[in-house]
Amino acid sequence: MSLSNIEIAQSARMLPIGEVAAGLGIPADSLEPYGRFKGKVSLPYLASLEDRPQGKLVLMTALSPTPAGEGKTTTTVGLGDALTRIGEKAMICLREPALGPVFGMKGGAAGGGYAQVVPMEDINLHFTGDFAAIEAATNLLAAMIDNHINHGNALGIDARRITWRRVLDVNDRSLRDVVIGLGGAGNGYPRESGFDIVVASEVMAIFCLAVSIADLRERLGDIVVGYTRSRMPVRARDLDAHGAMTAVLRNALAPNLVQTLENTPAFVHGGPFANIAHGCSSVIATGAALRLADYVVTEAGFGADLGAEKFVDILCRTTGLRPSAAVIVATVRALKYHGGVDVPDLPTENVAALEHGLPNLRRHLRTVRDTWNIPAVVAINHRAEDTDAEIAAVIAAVEAAGATAIVAKHYAEGGTGAEDLAREVVRLCTARSERADGELRFTYADSDTLWDKMKAIATRIYHATDIIASTKVRDQIHRLQDEGYGAYPVCVAKTQYSFSTDPKLRGAPAHHVVDIREVRLAAGARFIVMICGDIMTMPGLPAKPAANTITVDDEGTIRGLF
Amino acid sequence: MSLSNIEIAQSARMLPIGEVAAGLGIPADSLEPYGRFKGKVSLPYLASLEDRPQGKLVLMTALSPTPAGEGKTTTTVGLGDALTRIGEKAMICLREPALGPVFGMKGGAAGGGYAQVVPMEDINLHFTGDFAAIEAATNLLAAMIDNHINHGNALGIDARRITWRRVLDVNDRSLRDVVIGLGGAGNGYPRESGFDIVVASEVMAIFCLAVSIADLRERLGDIVVGYTRSRMPVRARDLDAHGAMTAVLRNALAPNLVQTLENTPAFVHGGPFANIAHGCSSVIATGAALRLADYVVTEAGFGADLGAEKFVDILCRTTGLRPSAAVIVATVRALKYHGGVDVPDLPTENVAALEHGLPNLRRHLRTVRDTWNIPAVVAINHRAEDTDAEIAAVIAAVEAAGATAIVAKHYAEGGTGAEDLAREVVRLCTARSERADGELRFTYADSDTLWDKMKAIATRIYHATDIIASTKVRDQIHRLQDEGYGAYPVCVAKTQYSFSTDPKLRGAPAHHVVDIREVRLAAGARFIVMICGDIMTMPGLPAKPAANTITVDDEGTIRGLF
Repeated sequence: MSLSNIEIAQSARMLPIGEVAAGLGIPADSLEPYGRFKGKVSLPYLASLEDRPQGKLVLMTALSPTPAGEGKTTTTVGLGDALTRIGEKAMICLREPALGPVFGMKGGAAGGGYAQVVPMEDINLHFTGDFAAIEAATNLLAAMIDNHINHGNALGIDARRITWRRVLDVNDRSLRDVVIGLGGAGNGYPRESGFDIVVASEVMAIFCLAVSIADLRERLGDIVVGYTRSRMPVRARDLDAHGAMTAVLRNALAPNLVQTLENTPAFVHGGPFANIAHGCSSVIATGAALRLADYVVTEAGFGADLGAEKFVDILCRTTGLRPSAAVIVATVRALKYHGGVDVPDLPTENVAALEHGLPNLRRHLRTVRDTWNIPAVVAINHRAEDTDAEIAAVIAAVEAAGATAIVAKHYAEGGTGAEDLAREVVRLCTARSERADGELRFTYADSDTLWDKMKAIATRIYHATDIIASTKVRDQIHRLQDEGYGAYPVCVAKTQYSFSTDPKLRGAPAHHVVDIREVRLAAGARFIVMICGDIMTMPGLPAKPAANTITVDDEGTIRGLF
Repeated sequence: MSLSNIEIAQSARMLPIGEVAAGLGIPADSLEPYGRFKGKVSLPYLASLEDRPQGKLVLMTALSPTPAGEGKTTTTVGLGDALTRIGEKAMICLREPALGPVFGMKGGAAGGGYAQVVPMEDINLHFTGDFAAIEAATNLLAAMIDNHINHGNALGIDARRITWRRVLDVNDRSLRDVVIGLGGAGNGYPRESGFDIVVASEVMAIFCLAVSIADLRERLGDIVVGYTRSRMPVRARDLDAHGAMTAVLRNALAPNLVQTLENTPAFVHGGPFANIAHGCSSVIATGAALRLADYVVTEAGFGADLGAEKFVDILCRTTGLRPSAAVIVATVRALKYHGGVDVPDLPTENVAALEHGLPNLRRHLRTVRDTWNIPAVVAINHRAEDTDAEIAAVIAAVEAAGATAIVAKHYAEGGTGAEDLAREVVRLCTARSERADGELRFTYADSDTLWDKMKAIATRIYHATDIIASTKVRDQIHRLQDEGYGAYPVCVAKTQYSFSTDPKLRGAPAHHVVDIREVRLAAGARFIVMICGDIMTMPGLPAKPAANTITVDDEGTIRGLF
C-alpha cells in the first residue's frame, strides 16, 4: 500500500536546520532556529550578501488550474532536488501555506508524494508565525481606524468610505459581511465591514514586496485605509500606525529556511493571494536565495496568465529580479479537463480530449516565451494512470510549438524522477546567458495609462478582444490616474480557471471581453487591483471539512493531515 | 538619566537559550529553540521527569490592584534572581503578555527596571506564537459552528443560543458586539455575536490547565459551544472540531523557556484572564519547573481575592500542586491609594492615608495565611519616593498582624535588592515543611453546591454579607447543578480593584453584597464562571494608544516599547 503524504513526510530524514544553513555558508549566529528543523535567516546577514553574484532564477508556473490538480509546488520541490542530484547548488522558494484552507478541503500546500518540504505538519500549521504577525498588523490598523473615529475623528474619516478590512487565517464565510460597533456608545459607531483571509491582506502583499525593514515601514505608512468626506485619502501614516505594524512584523520578515525530503534547502516565506495580490513568495527570500545558490526555483500562483504575469509585471518590474528560464507544469489529467472531460472520467485514456485541451498549454507557453521572452520547458507532472499515447501527444504538441516537454516523476520517485527536467532547465539557463537578445519583456510599459495596462494584459495574455467597465469604474480609474498612481502596475483579480473571466470557459477561449467590475488602490503594495468577475477573499468550509479528520495522538503526532 | 525598561532589556547580557537549558539539565535534543534566546522544552522530556522530587512552590500575589501599579511580575523576577544569588536553584513562572494591550496603554508585562524577563520585545510581541495558536483554535471552532448550521444544521444548533465567541489579540471595542453572516445566502445565516480578546477564550483556560496532549484534546472536546432548541448542550466533540484544534495547539503546549536579566531561567507560558478565567500560567510549565528547580516562584493575576483564590481553589484543587509559601506584594503608593489618595497626590508622603489603606493588605494577608493556611510574607516593592516613615508604618502593621514585611529594591537594583525577601521565603518554606499542620485549605469543599461555593468565596474572601441573583440566574445555577456540574469549582469574574463588585470601593469594604449577574459553563476548563458586575472581555484602545510611538529603526531595533 502506498504511503500518504504525511506518512512520507514523517519518515523523512531531516538534517538539523543548522546543518542545512551551514551547507549554504550561513554562519550559525545568523540563523534564528525555530525548533530543530526550521529557522529564520537574519536580515543583517542577508544584507551583507548584496555584492555577491546572483544565481539563476527559474520560474515555476502552470497551465490554467483545474480541479484535477497540477502539482506546481510538487514540481518545484522535485526540480530543486533534481538540480541538487545533478550537482548544482540549488534552492527553492515557496509560498507559506495558509492555515485556514488546511482545515477546509483536503490537500497540502507543501508538495506531495516524494517531493515535499518538511516538516510538513509545522509548515502547514502556522509554521513560524508569519501569517499570525501579518494578521495582527492588519487588525491593529483596523482597530486604530475605529478607535480614531470613536475618540473624535480628528482626521475626518468618512466611516462609509473605509476600505480597510480585518483578516483571519480561517475559512469563515460568516465573517465576509458583518456589522461592527454595535452595543451602544461604549463600543463606537456601528458600520458595515468584513473579514478577508490573511493572504488577501495588503499587508501580505507589502510583506512580500518589501526589500528591508525601512522599506516595509515606508510601504505600511503608505497604505490608504479610506477617505475623508472630501474624498482625500487617509493613510496608515496619518494614524501613526505604521511603526507599530512594523514592530509586529519585524521578526517575521526574516525568511524561513526549511528543507525538502532530500535535504535541498528551501525558503518558504510569505504567501499573497494570486488574484487580489501578486501571488509570489517574498522578494527578500528570493533575493537571498539568489546570493546563496546557483539555481533558485520559485513558484508563482495559479496559471501563467495570473501568477507568472504578476511575477513579471509587478515583481520583476519593481525589484529588478530576472528569471533565466521558466517551467510550465502540465498534467495529462488537466489537459483532458481543459479538453472538456469531467472529473470522474479523467483517469480514462482520452487522447482526443487531451488534444482538445492542448491550446490552453500552448497559449501559456507562447505568453512565457514570446510575450515575455523567457526560455521555457513544459514539465509533464506524471501520474501512474497516464498512458504512453497521451504523453506522446503532449510531447508532440509542445515540440510542434518549438519547445520541449519532459516527463517528470518526482511525485513517485523524488528528485531522481526529475533529472531530465533539471538538465533541460540548466541547458535553457546557460543558453539564455549566452544570447544577446535575452532581455525580459514586460506586457506593458510603466508609462502606459492604467487603462492601457489593463487592456494590454487582457488582449495579450488573456486573448480577450477588449476590456469594458461601467462609468463609475472608468471614473475611478481616471481619478487614480489623475492622482498620480498611473505609474503603478496593474494587479488583476480574476478567476484562475480560465483565460476569460468565466471559470467555466476551459481551454483557450477567444472572442471574450473582460469586464472590470471594481478597482482598488493598494498604495503600500504599489499596484492597482482591477477586479474582473467574482473574487472570493474569504473562503468557506465545505460540508465535511478536513478539520473533522485531523487530530493529534497521545504521543503528540499529527494524524489525518493530507 | 535613568534608562527606560526597553533600554535596560536591550543591554542585557543574555545567555544562549541552550546554555540556560543546560543549566537546568535539559538535554539539547529536548529543547526546541525559537531564535537564540527563546525555546520550548519538549513535552516527552518533561513527562520523563514525573518521578523526580518536586521543588518548593512560591505563590506571588498582591493587594487589590490600583492605577499606581504594584509590580507583581517585577517582584517575581526579583525574587527569582535573589534566590539564585543566595545559592538556591530557582526558576520563575509567568504568564505570557497579550499583544493587544501592548498597543493600548503604556506598560510592559515582562517586569520592569532591573527585574525583567528577556528578550522583552519578543516576549511582548507575540513571542513564540502560542496566543496566535489559541486564537486560531478558538476561531476554527467558531467557523465550524456556523459552517455546520450553513450546511443543514444536522445537530439542530439553536443559532440564538450559541455561546462560543471568536477572539483576536487586539484591543478593538468595535468587535465586542457584531452581526455576522450578512450578505446573502452564500454567507450563511445572520446572527448576533462578538469577539473577545484571546486571553478570555476558554481555549486559553484549557491550555493552561491541561496536563498533556491527551488531556488537552479531551478538554477541547468537552467545550459546550451552545445549545439545541431543546436546550441540550452542543460540544466541540459533536462538531468533530477538537482533534484539529489540538493539532493547531500541539507545538504551543510545550512551555517557553527564557531568562531574566540576571540569567535565572523562566517559563513564560499561557496567560488566561484572571476574571473570566483562572489567571495563572500553564500547569505544564509550573509542574515542569518544580522538577527542574528547588524553588519555583509563580505569579497569579490581580489581587489575592481573585488570582490567588483561583490558584488555590481551581488550580491547586484540580492538579495537586501545593504552594509552600506566598509573597504578597504591596507598594506604599498602592496603600495610599487604598487609603483614599488620588493618583496625582500619590508621590507625596502621607502616613495617615497609608494607614487608612492598610486594611486592604491585612485582609489579603489573613486570607492567605488563615483561610488557606499558606505561610506568607509581605514584599514592599520599593520606589525612590517612599519615605522612611511610610515604610515603617507598613512594617509595623504587618508585624502587628503576626507576619513580616520586607523592603525589596529589585526594580532599581536587580536580584541583590531582593535578597532579604529571598531569605525570608526560604525560611518560610523550610519551616512549612517541618510543620505537621501544613496542609493547604480550600475556600470550599468539592461537595458544596455551586451556590454555596460562590457564597463561601464572597463571604470568606470578599467579606461580603451575602450573595444575590435574579431568578433567571438562580435557575441557571440550579440547572448546572442538576446537569452534573456541581462538583466543578467556581471562577468569579468581578472587578479586580475592590473586594466588592464596585471598583470604586477601595480599601477593605464591608457590608457589601455580591450580585451574580450571569453564569457561564466552561465545560472544557471544568469550572463555572460567575460574573459579578461589569466585566470587559474585549478592551478598547485609548485616545492616544501606545502604538502611536512604537516603531522599528532601520537596523531592526524596536523603539518606544515601554
